[in-house]
Amino acid sequence: MKIDVLSIFPDMFDPLRQSMIGKAIEKGLIDFKVTDFREFTTNKQRHVDDVVYGGGAGMLLIPQPIFDAMEEVKKENNGDKGHVILVDPAGRKFDHHVAKKLSTYNHLTFISGHYEGYDNRIRNLVDEEISLGDYVLTGGELASMVIIDATVRFLDNVLGNSESAADDSFQNGLLEEPQYTRPANFRGMQVPEVLTNGDHEKIRKWRLKESLRKTFLRRPDLLEKRSFNKEELDFLDDIKYEESLDSDQ
Amino acid sequence: MKIDVLSIFPDMFDPLRQSMIGKAIEKGLIDFKVTDFREFTTNKQRHVDDVVYGGGAGMLLIPQPIFDAMEEVKKENNGDKGHVILVDPAGRKFDHHVAKKLSTYNHLTFISGHYEGYDNRIRNLVDEEISLGDYVLTGGELASMVIIDATVRFLDNVLGNSESAADDSFQNGLLEEPQYTRPANFRGMQVPEVLTNGDHEKIRKWRLKESLRKTFLRRPDLLEKRSFNKEELDFLDDIKYEESLDSDQ
Repeated sequence: MKIDVLSIFPDMFDPLRQSMIGKAIEKGLIDFKVTDFREFTTNKQRHVDDVVYGGGAGMLLIPQPIFDAMEEVKKENNGDKGHVILVDPAGRKFDHHVAKKLSTYNHLTFISGHYEGYDNRIRNLVDEEISLGDYVLTGGELASMVIIDATVRFLDNVLGNSESAADDSFQNGLLEEPQYTRPANFRGMQVPEVLTNGDHEKIRKWRLKESLRKTFLRRPDLLEKRSFNKEELDFLDDIKYEESLDSDQ
Repeated sequence: MKIDVLSIFPDMFDPLRQSMIGKAIEKGLIDFKVTDFREFTTNKQRHVDDVVYGGGAGMLLIPQPIFDAMEEVKKENNGDKGHVILVDPAGRKFDHHVAKKLSTYNHLTFISGHYEGYDNRIRNLVDEEISLGDYVLTGGELASMVIIDATVRFLDNVLGNSESAADDSFQNGLLEEPQYTRPANFRGMQVPEVLTNGDHEKIRKWRLKESLRKTFLRRPDLLEKRSFNKEELDFLDDIKYEESLDSDQ
């Protein structure tokens, strides 16, 4: 997969190179390039921003350097500018499904802005606006990195053998059950006994039930979107009963 | 505000220092420290992770280094470990309101994990679990940075005079209207005329109406949570009529 980013802070993307994405770049699974669009300014002062039409505080990114940097991306990729993403609070909410969908493109290009906002005409370059959530960030760099990280995990061979996107929360519509590692007793806090005595069927049942319980308590909305087999329905009945006892105390 | 982060990848937090948050650190408004909890391991190999109890792929962060790094944070802050945040898909959904609330604490401490997950006993250290959204990231570093960035913007004097969190999307319950900067004509794309002729009352009305229109088209759920004055209600009526004509074409 080719990933292009247009940004005036190319160094901010270094963290991606330090994580699993970095390994995927080394392995040649991802070709990752950040283009500093400040280098494409045609004004003498190399300004990338200007005042807002109609008055008001703040500065907006001017269209020219971004349009011209995008031309450069096209040139470098045989005329293909990629699927262009703008991170914006007004965009489609990013989630697991959007990440999976994005992972099917051969070429993604992120416009990663800073300052107060963009000249609206920049949207003519954009194929999809994505929002990380109902909050505002200082710049689009962190948001772009989050989207890239969550997306690239779905590519084949990016996660090592020991990891698996299939085991993640959301993959089967449930939150992950509580997990434990050694020691069995840490400063008086015990690992649940069932996990330590090697009965695989009991462990499977415990994990399924605690995954259902966590989802029931924390994210009941996820349960509404999902269908259940007989075993799961029985566990859900148990959980509702057990939790009603807890809340009566 | 004191911000502590426990992470085994301290360098990943460098981007924060490059943005407005970096300026806030320079001005002394934020005291930001990343503690590498790998330095607190007591095992010979300096491992921070181990296999999952009950079997399965992946590794989990062991509790000991994180508990001991947290003791160090307490020591350095007169016994105060801060409001401890764990970023986890099962947590409370992060948004504008959560960011504003977090900005009222004197001391925030983030546990920023990597690998497949945490030993569940680590949750005994945690005051609040926060989720960035329904997706999974390679590590908690990016997620912690997003939360820190969105939160710190609400602190007094962090944003310069020219910026203002009050003008952001969501602040008044609406998405921001389209904005434009120079030139008025960019490669044939024009700035809306009303913004260029200096009639402040007309500009105010246009902005309010287009902010309402964008929210109506993109995020009608935000309108349901908000009350409206007479002017806004009249605009909404116009918008519904205008957009119904558009969709009939």
